[in-house]
Amino acid sequence: MALDLDALYTDLHRHPELSFQETRTAAVIAGKLAELGLTAEEGVGRTGVVTTVENGDGPVVWLRADMDGLPVPEQTGLPYASTARGIDPAGNDVPVMHACGHDMHVTALLGALERLIATRGDWSGTVVAVFQPAEEYGAGSQAMIADRVLGRFPKPDIVLGQHVTPLPAGVIGVRPGTQMAASDGLTVVMHGRGGHGSRPHSTIDPVVMAAATVMRLQTVVSREVDPREVAVVTVGSIHAGLKNNIIPAEAKLELSLRYPDDAARERVMSKVERIVRAEAAASGAETEPTITVDHSLPPTINDHTATARVTAAFERAFGDGSVIDPGMFTGSEDVSWFAREAGVPLVFWFWGGVDPQTFADAVAGGTVERDIPTNHSPFFAPVMHPTIERGVENLVVAAREFLA
Amino acid sequence: MALDLDALYTDLHRHPELSFQETRTAAVIAGKLAELGLTAEEGVGRTGVVTTVENGDGPVVWLRADMDGLPVPEQTGLPYASTARGIDPAGNDVPVMHACGHDMHVTALLGALERLIATRGDWSGTVVAVFQPAEEYGAGSQAMIADRVLGRFPKPDIVLGQHVTPLPAGVIGVRPGTQMAASDGLTVVMHGRGGHGSRPHSTIDPVVMAAATVMRLQTVVSREVDPREVAVVTVGSIHAGLKNNIIPAEAKLELSLRYPDDAARERVMSKVERIVRAEAAASGAETEPTITVDHSLPPTINDHTATARVTAAFERAFGDGSVIDPGMFTGSEDVSWFAREAGVPLVFWFWGGVDPQTFADAVAGGTVERDIPTNHSPFFAPVMHPTIERGVENLVVAAREFLA
Amino acid sequence: MALDLDALYTDLHRHPELSFQETRTAAVIAGKLAELGLTAEEGVGRTGVVTTVENGDGPVVWLRADMDGLPVPEQTGLPYASTARGIDPAGNDVPVMHACGHDMHVTALLGALERLIATRGDWSGTVVAVFQPAEEYGAGSQAMIADRVLGRFPKPDIVLGQHVTPLPAGVIGVRPGTQMAASDGLTVVMHGRGGHGSRPHSTIDPVVMAAATVMRLQTVVSREVDPREVAVVTVGSIHAGLKNNIIPAEAKLELSLRYPDDAARERVMSKVERIVRAEAAASGAETEPTITVDHSLPPTINDHTATARVTAAFERAFGDGSVIDPGMFTGSEDVSWFAREAGVPLVFWFWGGVDPQTFADAVAGGTVERDIPTNHSPFFAPVMHPTIERGVENLVVAAREFLA
Amino acid sequence: MALDLDALYTDLHRHPELSFQETRTAAVIAGKLAELGLTAEEGVGRTGVVTTVENGDGPVVWLRADMDGLPVPEQTGLPYASTARGIDPAGNDVPVMHACGHDMHVTALLGALERLIATRGDWSGTVVAVFQPAEEYGAGSQAMIADRVLGRFPKPDIVLGQHVTPLPAGVIGVRPGTQMAASDGLTVVMHGRGGHGSRPHSTIDPVVMAAATVMRLQTVVSREVDPREVAVVTVGSIHAGLKNNIIPAEAKLELSLRYPDDAARERVMSKVERIVRAEAAASGAETEPTITVDHSLPPTINDHTATARVTAAFERAFGDGSVIDPGMFTGSEDVSWFAREAGVPLVFWFWGGVDPQTFADAVAGGTVERDIPTNHSPFFAPVMHPTIERGVENLVVAAREFLA
Repeated sequence: MALDLDALYTDLHRHPELSFQETRTAAVIAGKLAELGLTAEEGVGRTGVVTTVENGDGPVVWLRADMDGLPVPEQTGLPYASTARGIDPAGNDVPVMHACGHDMHVTALLGALERLIATRGDWSGTVVAVFQPAEEYGAGSQAMIADRVLGRFPKPDIVLGQHVTPLPAGVIGVRPGTQMAASDGLTVVMHGRGGHGSRPHSTIDPVVMAAATVMRLQTVVSREVDPREVAVVTVGSIHAGLKNNIIPAEAKLELSLRYPDDAARERVMSKVERIVRAEAAASGAETEPTITVDHSLPPTINDHTATARVTAAFERAFGDGSVIDPGMFTGSEDVSWFAREAGVPLVFWFWGGVDPQTFADAVAGGTVERDIPTNHSPFFAPVMHPTIERGVENLVVAAREFLA
Repeated sequence: MALDLDALYTDLHRHPELSFQETRTAAVIAGKLAELGLTAEEGVGRTGVVTTVENGDGPVVWLRADMDGLPVPEQTGLPYASTARGIDPAGNDVPVMHACGHDMHVTALLGALERLIATRGDWSGTVVAVFQPAEEYGAGSQAMIADRVLGRFPKPDIVLGQHVTPLPAGVIGVRPGTQMAASDGLTVVMHGRGGHGSRPHSTIDPVVMAAATVMRLQTVVSREVDPREVAVVTVGSIHAGLKNNIIPAEAKLELSLRYPDDAARERVMSKVERIVRAEAAASGAETEPTITVDHSLPPTINDHTATARVTAAFERAFGDGSVIDPGMFTGSEDVSWFAREAGVPLVFWFWGGVDPQTFADAVAGGTVERDIPTNHSPFFAPVMHPTIERGVENLVVAAREFLA
Repeated sequence: MALDLDALYTDLHRHPELSFQETRTAAVIAGKLAELGLTAEEGVGRTGVVTTVENGDGPVVWLRADMDGLPVPEQTGLPYASTARGIDPAGNDVPVMHACGHDMHVTALLGALERLIATRGDWSGTVVAVFQPAEEYGAGSQAMIADRVLGRFPKPDIVLGQHVTPLPAGVIGVRPGTQMAASDGLTVVMHGRGGHGSRPHSTIDPVVMAAATVMRLQTVVSREVDPREVAVVTVGSIHAGLKNNIIPAEAKLELSLRYPDDAARERVMSKVERIVRAEAAASGAETEPTITVDHSLPPTINDHTATARVTAAFERAFGDGSVIDPGMFTGSEDVSWFAREAGVPLVFWFWGGVDPQTFADAVAGGTVERDIPTNHSPFFAPVMHPTIERGVENLVVAAREFLA
Repeated sequence: MALDLDALYTDLHRHPELSFQETRTAAVIAGKLAELGLTAEEGVGRTGVVTTVENGDGPVVWLRADMDGLPVPEQTGLPYASTARGIDPAGNDVPVMHACGHDMHVTALLGALERLIATRGDWSGTVVAVFQPAEEYGAGSQAMIADRVLGRFPKPDIVLGQHVTPLPAGVIGVRPGTQMAASDGLTVVMHGRGGHGSRPHSTIDPVVMAAATVMRLQTVVSREVDPREVAVVTVGSIHAGLKNNIIPAEAKLELSLRYPDDAARERVMSKVERIVRAEAAASGAETEPTITVDHSLPPTINDHTATARVTAAFERAFGDGSVIDPGMFTGSEDVSWFAREAGVPLVFWFWGGVDPQTFADAVAGGTVERDIPTNHSPFFAPVMHPTIERGVENLVVAAREFLA
């Protein structure tokens, strides 16, 4: 009996889970794998799921899909929109949404497994399906590696992965070399001295300290990075204080940094630290700020030869013009740890999830930025068709390129 | 049987409650009033308590004490330090502390009632004791007025109140005219457009918008207010975002503004609004920021004649030099609504709660700002003696000045 | 033959001179003193002029008037408006204007000398008239002291001075105690590294460094000074760069600081220095900024007893209500060096130069700030009458109070 | 008799002239052209010089060199360092330096003409040498076009130009497509209201307004431009005020903007304008800021076919590896107006002027940014050899590629 991928996708979309909390998602995956006659290994890297399809001699191809949602309040208005909530690591009760399309990734990988099994007479080798948790924390692939995913399952000859994006449905974006940026997530705590809101002179105001720091951090990209180099310094969250009339004792900033390589990482990190410390000093802070690296993602680098093979296979399958070079993305991924750790090539591509007519209208109207919601937006909503079908086919075509 | 004021004080200190949640405090007060043979009217203005001591003909004197604690994590290390928690209006579970000494105010008022009852042969008239909730929200006195406190109890001829402060124990600070500033609490929500932290150009970053606003708001006091005029613009809280790699859709600022009079209020408010709107415009915000006045406190103005009488009575009771002019305080109070609404004079004074030797050492060492914790600090801790005794005596002396 | 004070005033107004360049002004003064039969000692403190009127036994009263103009482009539209230019200390050719009324001060002092001579039968003692240069640099009185003005002329028993201000003509403002703020003038040079405007990453941008410093300096007054204390931190000039496409190597800021006393001075100065150094560090500056104190003015403190005498004399002469307490001024003066150095009392007052009807209309319309030009404005223009007459009378009345 | 190019170069270096003031430079060029037997047309586009070498039938090749120096105080310590001064358009007396190597460009073009004349038997066609003024203002080529340079001299079939840069001597950098950014130079005047430095509340402080604007402008690149797009917003100069204690009435900013194309130009310009206007509004400015576009440079776009020919010619002449793709430069040029106006291809390349060992050491030490002075630096100093020889040869090789 065939999987109902539409029902699977809407079910996953309705029930997103935060990173390392994907227990229901894992159970759904395990259930579908059982329907396919496959054995699910659950709990790999806390909440990950792995299965193996052995089909004679030949290369081992890893197909990876990530599973987690985000603390974003869904505003798509879809009939299957999420109203789920979760508890984030700070203990806050937050809305949760599949705002990055990982539900689509899981659906496509399950569909691809079904197709590969159905056509097992046409290929030989081994497919390992890796359902990875906590990509959004940049921590899931390392958790699986720490849990010995490379030792417990057949070691890959190649790692393949894909991500749904706001390209027109039908279009694949992939390039050799750096496909996605390296990234670090930092937490900065700036220490002032609290007191009554009416007596600022008896305090060291951490709100002003943090605001000045945010403004100064803009100069890293605007003044200190070569304009031709890709770098991003985002302060994604700022929190201080409980009440208008109490000056709090500290402020917390969470930063996301992006760069193309390790040299740039080192430069940007040192500038960020220099600014944070100097702005604390400008406020007369009596305690040094604390800077913690919460996660650190390598650049996602596509192997040149393997990418050329995948690109050619896509063009044969989907026609000329179906593959574009989308440029380097400033977003980051932790998929490459699998390939780095195993010492094998990686190919990671994007596929479009926007209705082509909608996309064309937005391009014509110059409203792409405004009208096409991007990943992590509360309005992010890939069209189900043909996005699901293409997600399935992409994986099958790419995997078959390497399977004997 | 005499009240054990020390036990009462430490009990209240251990069990602070947030504004409009002072139910345990009210029950404790009602219990003590019953011990004194007085009838407590509970639930006045939600959680307030009022009692009346009638003692023949004569003026009606209102004695007011506020009851609520603050969302501050106590760090005094006292044996009776609070470990209480509460749910703030935003639904957050927060630590609670009597960081503003309202426990001392309640204790002193109960002690004063006991003393006045014990000496009722020496005076005639009526004393109304008003235990007011939610002073910290600037909302409690108005809630009691809305609950007809002025109609349900004998209308005052004078309203008296006091506040413990970081003056040396034994010293009273009071001045005719403006004793405490007017104050407004504002909530500002700035609207951007959310998106992925790696794609700032597809967003309107509310963190930067808010940071720029905080920096610009500094110029209201530094550039736009006459240097000789007292004004404060504090951003007591700033909150935006949940995660380093998601640019949120909005940022929230909570502001506390202070000024000596209504003319200054109007000027400062218009400047704050001008800056908030312009900074949203500088970011290209597509939605105007929303600015809400959460509470609005009048200046606390001491009646000249009544203050002269109270000052003279204090000096007779406690000696020359026991009363100082502490200048205008930039803090605010809602006690004056009672007097304003009733159209009668108000006298509101400060009394010291710091060990005199500690205070003298700090003055000598130039470390007052550093070493003497102020109200709302997590280290705020009046010494119990003679602060409790003096709080009791202050009320008795001042009340007796007006009672026949 | 009587001095034509109107002609004198308009002549001085037409020919303002920058500080320490008041050679024409000195010559005009010396000429008028000769007409009065007095001997002018010129060149005292570079361009100052001193004369002595000895008239028998009795106290020595110093009357002081300052002489210099400002680099302000006059926009009054007056028939006697200045079109003068001068070379400032940096070598720039700048417009010059008597934008602070020192022309009025000189005129009034010459008129007062004439009157005192004409009435010499009515008093005895010695009057020393001190025409001081370079008040605007805060350097003139010290230059005269360095040039031994206290040794070369009769030592004062009292020092008197006055300043024309935007009060209504007819009104005198004077208070015992601190009448004007202490002040420091600082030059801050921030060192970056220059380069091409298109390659910011190869530079250390001093324009951004200076701008961040200006914004941070706002927090000294807004956050670090007691709101009840008077303090001002003004960045009066900022200069960096020659061309849009060259990032310069340094930026220069000129600061004017104000405070009521030496304790506040020390605090504010240390905060300013802390911020300047930290902002240089935030930019990664390789060279510490240089901070130079260009001039340092003490607070102008009126002697309590002498001020009471002068005030009483004014009220006798001009009627009740003619003298107001104008509050402390945040402007500064160097007149007090004479009294400090001599160890004698000082009285320094303001007199009004605005047409009373104009002033009343502005008060009624709430447009005082907008419509009444203040000292140093390009529109500053005291009305000639009765400002000149009152300036003369003020000096005569006050001097006579102390002369036998 | 051969030109002494070393003497010519050091003479030009010693005597730099500001844009449109290159009269001595023009005279030197005309003198050398006369030595070569050529006729100099002077005064083309105010101070430009043009000459024509006709040599039979064949294509017309334009060789262009720019002539002007910069207001930079030379700090190279070279024996032939400039001590020249000039009067800039604002009337300031400023130091002048050949800080962008235009002296090298002029020297190389004269040397190339000598060589082409000496080898005229080997080619046929026409060479037009264009010595252009005022490249630094982005105004010289348009001035020559306005002066009908295209009508008065043989119309080009191709335009060639070159620029000395901090690449190792011996290396040529050139790429097809956008070689240098488009650029605009803006002047922004922000209007406040002046007054005394001690009374900020009676003013609208343009220094703070300008500083806030500089800080906010950083967000254009840091937040609003796609991180993968090249854009620069530099505030190259900021000027306000004359004195620490006068708050001035206005502040002037000069901006240099860079982008790869016209679409980006429009976007960045609109964001800059939005921010400038909003920051004026945040200050409560009563007058809108004025924004003037002082000059506007197109992107320098190398023709694909012609660049391929030149690159191949360079590699034949100088060996494999002698030509690199230097990436797009964020600097800008006005050379392309000649080609655009004529509708013909352009090839514009960079050649290295840094001693190769010095460069290699800096690369090894990671100190390129610190140790290798870039164009517009006061330390910019190409080595004379082989930079002069290579500049000559580059032009000859490239010109010969197109000459018959």
